[in-house]
Amino acid sequence: MSNSHDTEAASPAKAPKAPADEESTTPGVGFSVSSITRRWKREDLLKKGSLIARGFAFFLSLLSFIITASNKHGDWENFDNYEEYRYLLAIAILSALYTGVQAFRHVSAKLILDQRLSAMLDFVGDQVVSYLLISSVSAAIPMTNLMREGQDDIFTDSSASAISLSFFAFILLAISAMISGYKLSTQTYI
Amino acid sequence: MSNSHDTEAASPAKAPKAPADEESTTPGVGFSVSSITRRWKREDLLKKGSLIARGFAFFLSLLSFIITASNKHGDWENFDNYEEYRYLLAIAILSALYTGVQAFRHVSAKLILDQRLSAMLDFVGDQVVSYLLISSVSAAIPMTNLMREGQDDIFTDSSASAISLSFFAFILLAISAMISGYKLSTQTYI
Repeated sequence: MSNSHDTEAASPAKAPKAPADEESTTPGVGFSVSSITRRWKREDLLKKGSLIARGFAFFLSLLSFIITASNKHGDWENFDNYEEYRYLLAIAILSALYTGVQAFRHVSAKLILDQRLSAMLDFVGDQVVSYLLISSVSAAIPMTNLMREGQDDIFTDSSASAISLSFFAFILLAISAMISGYKLSTQTYI
Repeated sequence: MSNSHDTEAASPAKAPKAPADEESTTPGVGFSVSSITRRWKREDLLKKGSLIARGFAFFLSLLSFIITASNKHGDWENFDNYEEYRYLLAIAILSALYTGVQAFRHVSAKLILDQRLSAMLDFVGDQVVSYLLISSVSAAIPMTNLMREGQDDIFTDSSASAISLSFFAFILLAISAMISGYKLSTQTYI
């Protein structure tokens, strides 16, 4: 814009061409402004979406952690007799910590890192934690299935619910990972 | 560029300013050309990297599939008695098919889809298949661990090697998913 303005000021002999120029630039400006506001809206939506996904993932992992950790009913019905449930518990704790810190970081806006670094951290963190979550869920399912064939009591039910909660946390984090991948890309180029 | 050239042709009175203009634009052109070639090189490297990752993932999943499918030694030592190994086999087949078709598609350059659609397909496909692979590996590990505590023969060894192969295929596909995420982003904006 400034360039064309400069040229017109320097050579007033080009007056007849000016209206045509203006006509061609005005829709361009209108288009770019609307596309920028559209982009802001989209990014705002994505930011909110990511925050909501992480918030729910935090809640679900915390619940999964509490349910697994309190799943002790004496004798063989203690979660800590089985490495699968110990793994499920460990990953649920890790996921709750990660999503909690991330949600806090994005809400408070105090712990501000470099934008690029922050986007990278979000993407890699979401990816790794979602791989760990699906892994812990898959490890715990066969054992639980086997137990539920034999009997169906509070121990196996608690395990099954903790597994489902971790699975939903995985779904949310996988969505959040896609959103952060998208954000990372916009950070890199614009 | 074409804009400034146009202006000079229209107003030759601005001759003294021309050299300064040229001086200021030349390094800009040099910079943008070098940045474009750098970008081409980087994209070429990523394309090759993605192809190599998928090729190796294809090889590893195929090996995992063959080892699991031939893991039959009579009595209880048949892979198909255990749902974990059936799941491992199914996902190894799926992963071999997916990576094979993708590698073929990118090598042959005959099956050309719309660029944007193709990048989207790559990203979502890589993500989903890598989640499935880590899930099948995690499901098969506890059972194999338990069996190897009791005894250590050709059946458990084959299972363990199939699991390792699937795991390495997962690592490669996770890398490929990151590369396709990056590619998707460059497709969207440039």
